[in-house]
Amino acid sequence: MNHDQLNDLLTRLCAGQISQGEVVDQLRRLPVESFTEAQLDHHRCLRTGIPEIIFGQSKTADQIQAIIERMHARRSVILATRVDNDKAEKICKALPYLHYDPIARLLIGNQEYAPTIEVQGEIVLVTAGSSDLPIAEEARLTLELFGHPTKQIYDSGVAGIHRILGQTKTLQQAAAIIVIAGMEGALPSVVAGLTDAPVIGVPTSVGYGTGAGGFSALLGMLNSCSPGLAVVNIDNGFGAACMAAAINRIRS
Amino acid sequence: MNHDQLNDLLTRLCAGQISQGEVVDQLRRLPVESFTEAQLDHHRCLRTGIPEIIFGQSKTADQIQAIIERMHARRSVILATRVDNDKAEKICKALPYLHYDPIARLLIGNQEYAPTIEVQGEIVLVTAGSSDLPIAEEARLTLELFGHPTKQIYDSGVAGIHRILGQTKTLQQAAAIIVIAGMEGALPSVVAGLTDAPVIGVPTSVGYGTGAGGFSALLGMLNSCSPGLAVVNIDNGFGAACMAAAINRIRS
Amino acid sequence: MNHDQLNDLLTRLCAGQISQGEVVDQLRRLPVESFTEAQLDHHRCLRTGIPEIIFGQSKTADQIQAIIERMHARRSVILATRVDNDKAEKICKALPYLHYDPIARLLIGNQEYAPTIEVQGEIVLVTAGSSDLPIAEEARLTLELFGHPTKQIYDSGVAGIHRILGQTKTLQQAAAIIVIAGMEGALPSVVAGLTDAPVIGVPTSVGYGTGAGGFSALLGMLNSCSPGLAVVNIDNGFGAACMAAAINRIRS
Amino acid sequence: MNHDQLNDLLTRLCAGQISQGEVVDQLRRLPVESFTEAQLDHHRCLRTGIPEIIFGQSKTADQIQAIIERMHARRSVILATRVDNDKAEKICKALPYLHYDPIARLLIGNQEYAPTIEVQGEIVLVTAGSSDLPIAEEARLTLELFGHPTKQIYDSGVAGIHRILGQTKTLQQAAAIIVIAGMEGALPSVVAGLTDAPVIGVPTSVGYGTGAGGFSALLGMLNSCSPGLAVVNIDNGFGAACMAAAINRIRS
Amino acid sequence: MNHDQLNDLLTRLCAGQISQGEVVDQLRRLPVESFTEAQLDHHRCLRTGIPEIIFGQSKTADQIQAIIERMHARRSVILATRVDNDKAEKICKALPYLHYDPIARLLIGNQEYAPTIEVQGEIVLVTAGSSDLPIAEEARLTLELFGHPTKQIYDSGVAGIHRILGQTKTLQQAAAIIVIAGMEGALPSVVAGLTDAPVIGVPTSVGYGTGAGGFSALLGMLNSCSPGLAVVNIDNGFGAACMAAAINRIRS
Amino acid sequence: MNHDQLNDLLTRLCAGQISQGEVVDQLRRLPVESFTEAQLDHHRCLRTGIPEIIFGQSKTADQIQAIIERMHARRSVILATRVDNDKAEKICKALPYLHYDPIARLLIGNQEYAPTIEVQGEIVLVTAGSSDLPIAEEARLTLELFGHPTKQIYDSGVAGIHRILGQTKTLQQAAAIIVIAGMEGALPSVVAGLTDAPVIGVPTSVGYGTGAGGFSALLGMLNSCSPGLAVVNIDNGFGAACMAAAINRIRS
Amino acid sequence: MNHDQLNDLLTRLCAGQISQGEVVDQLRRLPVESFTEAQLDHHRCLRTGIPEIIFGQSKTADQIQAIIERMHARRSVILATRVDNDKAEKICKALPYLHYDPIARLLIGNQEYAPTIEVQGEIVLVTAGSSDLPIAEEARLTLELFGHPTKQIYDSGVAGIHRILGQTKTLQQAAAIIVIAGMEGALPSVVAGLTDAPVIGVPTSVGYGTGAGGFSALLGMLNSCSPGLAVVNIDNGFGAACMAAAINRIRS
Amino acid sequence: MNHDQLNDLLTRLCAGQISQGEVVDQLRRLPVESFTEAQLDHHRCLRTGIPEIIFGQSKTADQIQAIIERMHARRSVILATRVDNDKAEKICKALPYLHYDPIARLLIGNQEYAPTIEVQGEIVLVTAGSSDLPIAEEARLTLELFGHPTKQIYDSGVAGIHRILGQTKTLQQAAAIIVIAGMEGALPSVVAGLTDAPVIGVPTSVGYGTGAGGFSALLGMLNSCSPGLAVVNIDNGFGAACMAAAINRIRS
Repeated sequence: MNHDQLNDLLTRLCAGQISQGEVVDQLRRLPVESFTEAQLDHHRCLRTGIPEIIFGQSKTADQIQAIIERMHARRSVILATRVDNDKAEKICKALPYLHYDPIARLLIGNQEYAPTIEVQGEIVLVTAGSSDLPIAEEARLTLELFGHPTKQIYDSGVAGIHRILGQTKTLQQAAAIIVIAGMEGALPSVVAGLTDAPVIGVPTSVGYGTGAGGFSALLGMLNSCSPGLAVVNIDNGFGAACMAAAINRIRS
Repeated sequence: MNHDQLNDLLTRLCAGQISQGEVVDQLRRLPVESFTEAQLDHHRCLRTGIPEIIFGQSKTADQIQAIIERMHARRSVILATRVDNDKAEKICKALPYLHYDPIARLLIGNQEYAPTIEVQGEIVLVTAGSSDLPIAEEARLTLELFGHPTKQIYDSGVAGIHRILGQTKTLQQAAAIIVIAGMEGALPSVVAGLTDAPVIGVPTSVGYGTGAGGFSALLGMLNSCSPGLAVVNIDNGFGAACMAAAINRIRS
Repeated sequence: MNHDQLNDLLTRLCAGQISQGEVVDQLRRLPVESFTEAQLDHHRCLRTGIPEIIFGQSKTADQIQAIIERMHARRSVILATRVDNDKAEKICKALPYLHYDPIARLLIGNQEYAPTIEVQGEIVLVTAGSSDLPIAEEARLTLELFGHPTKQIYDSGVAGIHRILGQTKTLQQAAAIIVIAGMEGALPSVVAGLTDAPVIGVPTSVGYGTGAGGFSALLGMLNSCSPGLAVVNIDNGFGAACMAAAINRIRS
Repeated sequence: MNHDQLNDLLTRLCAGQISQGEVVDQLRRLPVESFTEAQLDHHRCLRTGIPEIIFGQSKTADQIQAIIERMHARRSVILATRVDNDKAEKICKALPYLHYDPIARLLIGNQEYAPTIEVQGEIVLVTAGSSDLPIAEEARLTLELFGHPTKQIYDSGVAGIHRILGQTKTLQQAAAIIVIAGMEGALPSVVAGLTDAPVIGVPTSVGYGTGAGGFSALLGMLNSCSPGLAVVNIDNGFGAACMAAAINRIRS
Repeated sequence: MNHDQLNDLLTRLCAGQISQGEVVDQLRRLPVESFTEAQLDHHRCLRTGIPEIIFGQSKTADQIQAIIERMHARRSVILATRVDNDKAEKICKALPYLHYDPIARLLIGNQEYAPTIEVQGEIVLVTAGSSDLPIAEEARLTLELFGHPTKQIYDSGVAGIHRILGQTKTLQQAAAIIVIAGMEGALPSVVAGLTDAPVIGVPTSVGYGTGAGGFSALLGMLNSCSPGLAVVNIDNGFGAACMAAAINRIRS
Repeated sequence: MNHDQLNDLLTRLCAGQISQGEVVDQLRRLPVESFTEAQLDHHRCLRTGIPEIIFGQSKTADQIQAIIERMHARRSVILATRVDNDKAEKICKALPYLHYDPIARLLIGNQEYAPTIEVQGEIVLVTAGSSDLPIAEEARLTLELFGHPTKQIYDSGVAGIHRILGQTKTLQQAAAIIVIAGMEGALPSVVAGLTDAPVIGVPTSVGYGTGAGGFSALLGMLNSCSPGLAVVNIDNGFGAACMAAAINRIRS
Repeated sequence: MNHDQLNDLLTRLCAGQISQGEVVDQLRRLPVESFTEAQLDHHRCLRTGIPEIIFGQSKTADQIQAIIERMHARRSVILATRVDNDKAEKICKALPYLHYDPIARLLIGNQEYAPTIEVQGEIVLVTAGSSDLPIAEEARLTLELFGHPTKQIYDSGVAGIHRILGQTKTLQQAAAIIVIAGMEGALPSVVAGLTDAPVIGVPTSVGYGTGAGGFSALLGMLNSCSPGLAVVNIDNGFGAACMAAAINRIRS
Repeated sequence: MNHDQLNDLLTRLCAGQISQGEVVDQLRRLPVESFTEAQLDHHRCLRTGIPEIIFGQSKTADQIQAIIERMHARRSVILATRVDNDKAEKICKALPYLHYDPIARLLIGNQEYAPTIEVQGEIVLVTAGSSDLPIAEEARLTLELFGHPTKQIYDSGVAGIHRILGQTKTLQQAAAIIVIAGMEGALPSVVAGLTDAPVIGVPTSVGYGTGAGGFSALLGMLNSCSPGLAVVNIDNGFGAACMAAAINRIRS
């Protein structure tokens, strides 16, 4: 509502064309009324660069399928995360245009509708151990779906520190680095100490006992003594990919 | 020693202005030849783009002063974080070339030796409430010290959601956004839902009871349903600034 | 025994349709005369407006069935919460007058004996995502069983903030609002900032990693910067419905 | 600006007592026309029934005073919470129109500008022990400031259960009940089992050891077996008052 | 070996019914002469009044059976706790002199060798809800095995406070009271406020969400404002029974 | 309300002497109405054997003094716990009939009005280290005030296990044992393994780091493998004394 | 890079044989460049005395098998930890040169390639209860694989303290002692108080309720009042064995 | 008690020289009776190699002084840990034969009575940052007091990984290594990956926010992926020194 509209409103009030109650009612709901009936977030991709994604974990196969069908109908790229094997099988049977990656637990479809973007460079994916693979693959496939080139440095934990040191050049040339580690989560600190590229730490739930489902790795990363590092939720490879994508895309 | 200083040194060597012996002598103190006496990380700025910073909290005024004097002697930019008023007063009396910011609790000096960099754009700083100011200022002054332009959107928490909505255009033009919030830490989720710029969440210890010294805000940010968001430690304005700086600098 | 039933009993006594002895005999089972055999809280509906409810989670199907049969015998409305599919199937086979809702995990029966009440208005149910549906339905069915009209605003999380903003008018006209959200639990803060109706937050266990089974959402809601908001246990749609019912009923 | 003030403004406009330009000018400061300078949420009282409140804990005396002066200038009721003695003394010396309550730690002023509302009935305040007094008083003074009548039942913890039982009639006639308890936080469960009024539990940090700063009381309340109970943050008497106020005001 | 058996042995020695060598041989297996092979604590019943008990949870059926056979061979009373149905079935088939209680999950045998004791009075068992039954039965059967009379007050939680109030006389005549409650764990506080008998609280894992597997109930009990109450581990009905037994036996 | 009273009520209803509404009203508030006006818990000592005690920690000196004066006026024994030096000095100056113990932080007075009781035997107090002294003294002075003889075994932690072993005879003759230990809290397990007397564990906040203010000691005691042990809150010497007193007094 | 190499580099720069940019690039990646291409940690055994071990828990049978085959090809001793029965069966069928221990959950092979070492003495393994057996066996088999003699003192928890006291001589002659205990984890404190040998505590997840999956035992060990004790992760028998092996091997 | 003693006892029983009750009484207290009257742990040094140490933190200056005087009288080496400046000053004034180290917060005296031992080699002390100095010095001075040579590698955290890599040779020659680190606690993992010497991790409380007083560092170390590492309590430099001393002393 601009000056003119407000003046018009008050003029009509003074002219008795609308009641004082109606004016109060209109003023009361500002500034929000103009966003009416936005049940579905069709504009998210324009706004944030990332289209609406389906969080598959706590939905039934039927729920996921129904959402995908609506997205498919309006020609949207499709990505559902944390979809287990059983659900995926059921959905893929019904919707054969989908592809399922059992390691990354991703359902993917309609890549041709993914937004085309310009990127700054390569995203480097680093893992501490081979147990971190599912999270790394969730990140990698998400990045590729949205048009970001990636490079992998897997199985390079701090117990054999020279493995990551040998990759310093690659780390220094990255547009952004995603470091995925469970247990003590020390690897992102070491990586961030070797490069000026922004580092995104992903703690994983790999471990046991005091690993506490990834909390130890998370706390390790949050308390890093190396600057240039930020962190996402435990096992959130998808979130790390989105952060890396936000960093890597060229906003003009 | 930063890129500029190294290039300058080599240029002067090629120009015959200093001898090769002098260059070797200066490079000796970089951890090049021998690791055995590498108490101080002179090489860090070249490697990570951020020179060595002093974590002031658990050091005595004497310890901080001694470190600053050594850094000053080799012409390094100086930044000490989490320095309280009493320590700062004592140190500034001894070292009058330092400036102390009592809100951000930063000791700053030798700005002229800060590395010169090329940046992509502006870093936007958003706070939920005026209690978050000290952390925001820690981030802002750090960014400015390292040559990053900033813009402030302060006091825009979700209880009055229109305040941040009115800033959507600014949020969409940022190179990176730092969102600083205590209590429930919901603001970064809302911001990340409005923009395609990378968002760095900084939980603050503002709050009481179940706020748990910032843990509630932290957990809120880590569990955000908005992609494109990563998080640093509670009250870590400095760390957020370093992440934003890593994102914003143009690596060639 | 609810108000209606007690009034009916006394009316029939006054009308000579039943003897005083019969009335005493029926009231005997209320905890009036002697506390010694008050295993079951027949008096609760008169006292609190909500009859005794069966917490189905840690009881066997046999235990639940036995309790329902006793309640059925004295004409009580029946509601059992957190009953899984297997138990429900077994019980419904034995007691065909029951209805089971598999999403809300509720066993319902004898609606005709529910107390009749006067209400102030509508209870609005808001969810952040479609994964929160089971808890929302637990709340909705409980409210409807006890005679409260409801309105649903589902799938309106803060990642697309305009979705909830577009519903502001509905939020401002509610008698009470139940907001159900997992992950960071930010939605109740935003809702409470848009309305003067009392808001009841229900954190859900939707999420993973640091979501910590709903604790992050809970902490987010408890630390809300928006006043006019109170919270119930994680996944406690039933409890939220009871609170909303207590607010909405007109006490004369 | 509250309903009364807005109606008054429009009435005076219709009566020709002020010009349309003056009205527009005043409304300009509401977030109507432009969001760009909405640092302060002048619109909040119209939207949520509760004007903007100052969270005094992590602000300096100077910050609090500056905010109060701006609010005073536009004739707003003033309430600052969690203000300690030292800050209060300094502020009251500068702004003698303020009143400070040292038990509730509240700064109050301009009561005459508080919104006038219609209420359903009385809010009953119950405490477990005399150590809970400060939180109870924070709630009581907040309620009174906003025009809600209150009744006190203090020092009635479950160790002497008959104390609260003797108040059952009062509990059953309340429009809403705020129960304030530390240690094991059992009192709200007992109260909610005695009444059909909505109960708001406020855990307090009274206790030691495993009391964990109020977490035990909080958990006790969240896990209550009595329906009709919702909870606010530890020591949040103000928040409980706002929830009770939202319940008690008659929305037309 | 218990007091009775030892006295019997010595009496028979004095009476010449067995030789001194035979006595020495039997006592050899007590940890008297040599500690080196004291794998099993045969001496425990003499020392603590409670014979060695088998913690069945983390042992295989084979391990449990082997231990029971050795205990059976030396005429010991047998009690194994936390034995699930599958293990119990397997063991009972092999050792038909055992009895299994599926609710209490106890394996019991050789009651005739339980020590005979003198007791002060009755142990009263109180539960909050019917979900607490398994733990209550674990306590009750343990007490009865060791010769302590018990009385049950089940299903008397604080949501209907009159249920426990009606039992005050029984509570005041008990030698000790075991109160078993999940969720908020408030019942022991109320009971301890009604009697001068020692109260043992047993938090149970009944609940969900913030119930945190019994931690909320535990914390509630530890922070009780009622003196005369002590607490055992979550779901530890056996431990509560042992504490009650220690209180109730007359030590001469 | 008994049979006669109920019949009378109904007769009067049938006779039209009271309205149906009045009958409903009276029946609604049962069974609680009879406890009217019990503001102060004067009968607690009769009911629980322990008179009302003042929790001094979160009360001001003025509040404590006011309560003591009222108790003094009705000739009650006086015990205030967790009173720090400053408060105690102020109160003792005003009320010279009080005695303050600075180690136990107890204010004591009017011992002559303490209830006289018959006891079973001696309470043995055991501490792990000399740092646990304040808590042990809080327990000891409380016990002596209420007429229980005590015996001390101080400074006998498990690092020198023979120290407690040498006291086995004393431990086996006790009526009850209070074991006070910080750090790992292992001593109660060892003691409970040596005696058939009931053992009350008191974890203390002695320690640092992972000691977590006594939580490690608490958890150690709750998970004891020795039966015959129950636990009170951290640093709760008073509570342990009350439990021991409840065990030791002879109820006739 | 040594003096000569640096001088050579600078000489070539001055001679125009390499560009200034190349020099900067080489100096920037020091001191890490020399570690190139270390994808696999073949040298770990030389460096740390322990060859690369496979953490089997979060890997598939296929992943484990692939890694073992590569290790087998280069004649490495093979040890995979935390391998469950199903995976083990599948792998052993394919690779019959492996042996699986179902209690310790270890896959072992190629013992003949284990490093031969000189040791100081015997490692003593102590367990609190028979439920701790799997962790003890994981430690024992690991030690034996790497050539360390072991001695077992099993089932000697503190509830029967004489069992461990009888083993004092063995404890005092050990080269190192591994103490494995769940529940309250008190045994390592007692053991460390009896010997001058280094003690390694292994908390186990044996227990329930507040045992919290081994956290109580862990905290107990970390807060031990006995010096000469250090701790590894919950259930980490393998890690304890490695620490003991590091202590026991004679480094020349 | 051996065979002869037991036979003698039984013979006297049969001869009527002692009563059956006396025999039961003697057998009941075995195996503990022989440890009588061990109030003070004079033999600890013989038993564990470390004399009794005073934990100064929760003792008053008077208590500490009294203990030291008794130890001095029997010619014991004296070490009191965690003694703050104020206490130390007071004690040193009274007992001038003591030395106080204000950084390590240790009171030391009577070094000449320290046990003389044979050692295997040098203990290397590594710190991550200069804030860890107090804990490192607590360890170093403890080690030197008991005759262990030490070597320091200070200020070598993982943010500049080359600093510790340059010390690999020293790390590989150590008899044991103590690594002291706060924040993310990653340094011990890196060190343990570089050497076959046993590594003792000491988490420190250096950090803020999620550092949680050292818990993050602790969890990082417990979850290390590098074998050959064990951990002590947060800030427990003394405990690490004792573990290192136990490893380093040659037991003959």
